[in-house]
Amino acid sequence: VAGIVTLTTDFGVRDPWVGTMKGVILGINPLVRLVDLTHEVERHEVLEAALALEAAVPFFPHGTVHLVVVDPGVGGERRGLVIAAGRDRFVGPDNGLFTPVLLGDGWEAFELSAPQYRLPAVSATFHGRDVFAPAAAHLALGVEPERFGCPVRDPVCLPWPAARRTPAGVAGEVIHVDRFGNLITSIRAGDLPLDPVVQVAGRSAPVAHAYGSAAAGQLIGLVGSSGRLEVAVTEGSAALVLGVDRGAPVAVSSGSRSSPKK
Amino acid sequence: VAGIVTLTTDFGVRDPWVGTMKGVILGINPLVRLVDLTHEVERHEVLEAALALEAAVPFFPHGTVHLVVVDPGVGGERRGLVIAAGRDRFVGPDNGLFTPVLLGDGWEAFELSAPQYRLPAVSATFHGRDVFAPAAAHLALGVEPERFGCPVRDPVCLPWPAARRTPAGVAGEVIHVDRFGNLITSIRAGDLPLDPVVQVAGRSAPVAHAYGSAAAGQLIGLVGSSGRLEVAVTEGSAALVLGVDRGAPVAVSSGSRSSPKK
Amino acid sequence: VAGIVTLTTDFGVRDPWVGTMKGVILGINPLVRLVDLTHEVERHEVLEAALALEAAVPFFPHGTVHLVVVDPGVGGERRGLVIAAGRDRFVGPDNGLFTPVLLGDGWEAFELSAPQYRLPAVSATFHGRDVFAPAAAHLALGVEPERFGCPVRDPVCLPWPAARRTPAGVAGEVIHVDRFGNLITSIRAGDLPLDPVVQVAGRSAPVAHAYGSAAAGQLIGLVGSSGRLEVAVTEGSAALVLGVDRGAPVAVSSGSRSSPKK
Repeated sequence: VAGIVTLTTDFGVRDPWVGTMKGVILGINPLVRLVDLTHEVERHEVLEAALALEAAVPFFPHGTVHLVVVDPGVGGERRGLVIAAGRDRFVGPDNGLFTPVLLGDGWEAFELSAPQYRLPAVSATFHGRDVFAPAAAHLALGVEPERFGCPVRDPVCLPWPAARRTPAGVAGEVIHVDRFGNLITSIRAGDLPLDPVVQVAGRSAPVAHAYGSAAAGQLIGLVGSSGRLEVAVTEGSAALVLGVDRGAPVAVSSGSRSSPKK
Repeated sequence: VAGIVTLTTDFGVRDPWVGTMKGVILGINPLVRLVDLTHEVERHEVLEAALALEAAVPFFPHGTVHLVVVDPGVGGERRGLVIAAGRDRFVGPDNGLFTPVLLGDGWEAFELSAPQYRLPAVSATFHGRDVFAPAAAHLALGVEPERFGCPVRDPVCLPWPAARRTPAGVAGEVIHVDRFGNLITSIRAGDLPLDPVVQVAGRSAPVAHAYGSAAAGQLIGLVGSSGRLEVAVTEGSAALVLGVDRGAPVAVSSGSRSSPKK
Repeated sequence: VAGIVTLTTDFGVRDPWVGTMKGVILGINPLVRLVDLTHEVERHEVLEAALALEAAVPFFPHGTVHLVVVDPGVGGERRGLVIAAGRDRFVGPDNGLFTPVLLGDGWEAFELSAPQYRLPAVSATFHGRDVFAPAAAHLALGVEPERFGCPVRDPVCLPWPAARRTPAGVAGEVIHVDRFGNLITSIRAGDLPLDPVVQVAGRSAPVAHAYGSAAAGQLIGLVGSSGRLEVAVTEGSAALVLGVDRGAPVAVSSGSRSSPKK
């Protein structure tokens, strides 16, 4: 087995760009396993790709190579990066995509500059194909990260959405709206107060155990599969019902405190 | 070769949920072949997923594992199932997804409860990742279905769309509208009378041999690739032209009988 | 390793047709690697599929089998084709899909008629599954192209969009609009005059090095990743800004000639 490469881009699936990257990878590493995470990242939305990576990476075997190409600066001055974190590898442009990895311990980053791990001709517009895909293929073959270029001490790190303590509990924001209209927030399971009540868009909602545990149409909070607080409408779309989008403030207070008579 | 796992969900491809399930599967069974059937099942539409399964399963090699996650009841009381039918295997929630399999002979079903075939931590919201994907990976490794839990005698079976005889021929309904606007019906090739004429939305149509055998814009019936009667508009959309959707009644009479003067 | 098969269709990903073709292929050739180029070709748009093929094929290893099914004539009289070009193989309906291959040298084409390389039952509506997928699987196993049927001397060739010299430089047209609204043209890098200035929809634009090298909102030409001139709006959609679509005329003149005072 010659390793796994995951692919995350904003290229969509209408044009053959993702398939072309896979052709390049298989030309270098014919046995590698290729897994799409998503190619429907909103165009140039680096944070959205970073969140997808955060959700998926822990469920892949150690040693997986994660190739991420959301690259508004292609052809400009931005660096390419190879990051090693434990046995996992990450490759893509240095624009904050790897923030969740960089917030952890024990990573090393290298500039992606060695010409022997690129295609012979590098276009100005498609480094996913000409630079990042060949690097991912070589990483999956076991090429050591330091072979790709000089160490990078200061890879770009995005301000990472977090929750903050408030007198009443915790406050955060909507960081992503999924296909079902569920609102994914910056508040994590461990941030929640006892007996939590969610406030969003002027509405209150209890925190339920699962989507199926509330009546259809009910607004609920719940801890989603990535360990983040989500706001959902059972059998419906919280985004539509509440009319909110990414960035909307979300607060959680303790129901026991705010309604001691309960 | 360590087997094939197909994946059918209503998760879409914008979020990394399908990719995450694949990471889980490859961590358990690194050599398995993964094939997407569709991830664009309408949200919670169990019947639509069952029809996709009915169309695709006969064309996969014996021994394929079919993983289906359309799961409105996740986190609630519904069971998980492993089904063996011949050498084929099916895994997913017990909500009717496997009706076309259960209508056949010679199946055995088991409750998906053995903890050793799940992830160590099972979330309340993503059993696709935590319960069903690991089970599929183990099934593809050859783990026997009875190892997953107790036999289930009464798996959920949906009312399955069928055709009924009428004095004039046969009657049924539209059960699916495909991407091209073709109307897939509950009437099968074997149900058709001699010299069949299709009635739908107040219009009549002959049954043609193929899409290409009628003039552009013509309304035709034809027996589609799954053996079901379809209603199509050559080079157009029958759904748009007729203004009908799933559930619309469709009848077929014998042209020879209804027009004996012909 | 038993070869690579790429798949290009207009089937979309909502219905399980692509997955079904993959089941057929894996039943014949269990070790083959499957790569999707695109399944979102506009319905029946043969030229669009041919352009996808032109962009992707050079980046796959020699010996790859390219399966293309955009097939408005399915069930009619059109032939099926197997084409050998060097070690690469192509399979699909004979309707012009393979024009970029046929414009090159050294190809041989064969009619896809040998019954032993089809499914036992061939439907009238889904040759992708019943005829072309089995042929691709056998080609990837190493079956020689001449085994599939008689030589074809006159495969269908589409009028291929090209550029023409003009007194001022070169003229062509928009041949594709990508997901980002970039306009892909029939003009190639080698066609461009010195100091090129692009004229499209009454606007002029310089030819930039890369997307990132111009200010947001600026209209630019650039040589895209397939070697074709593209018209783009940095961080925006040229298609929306200019209100143009496929077929719009594009001209390039030499800035040095038209503005000698510069």
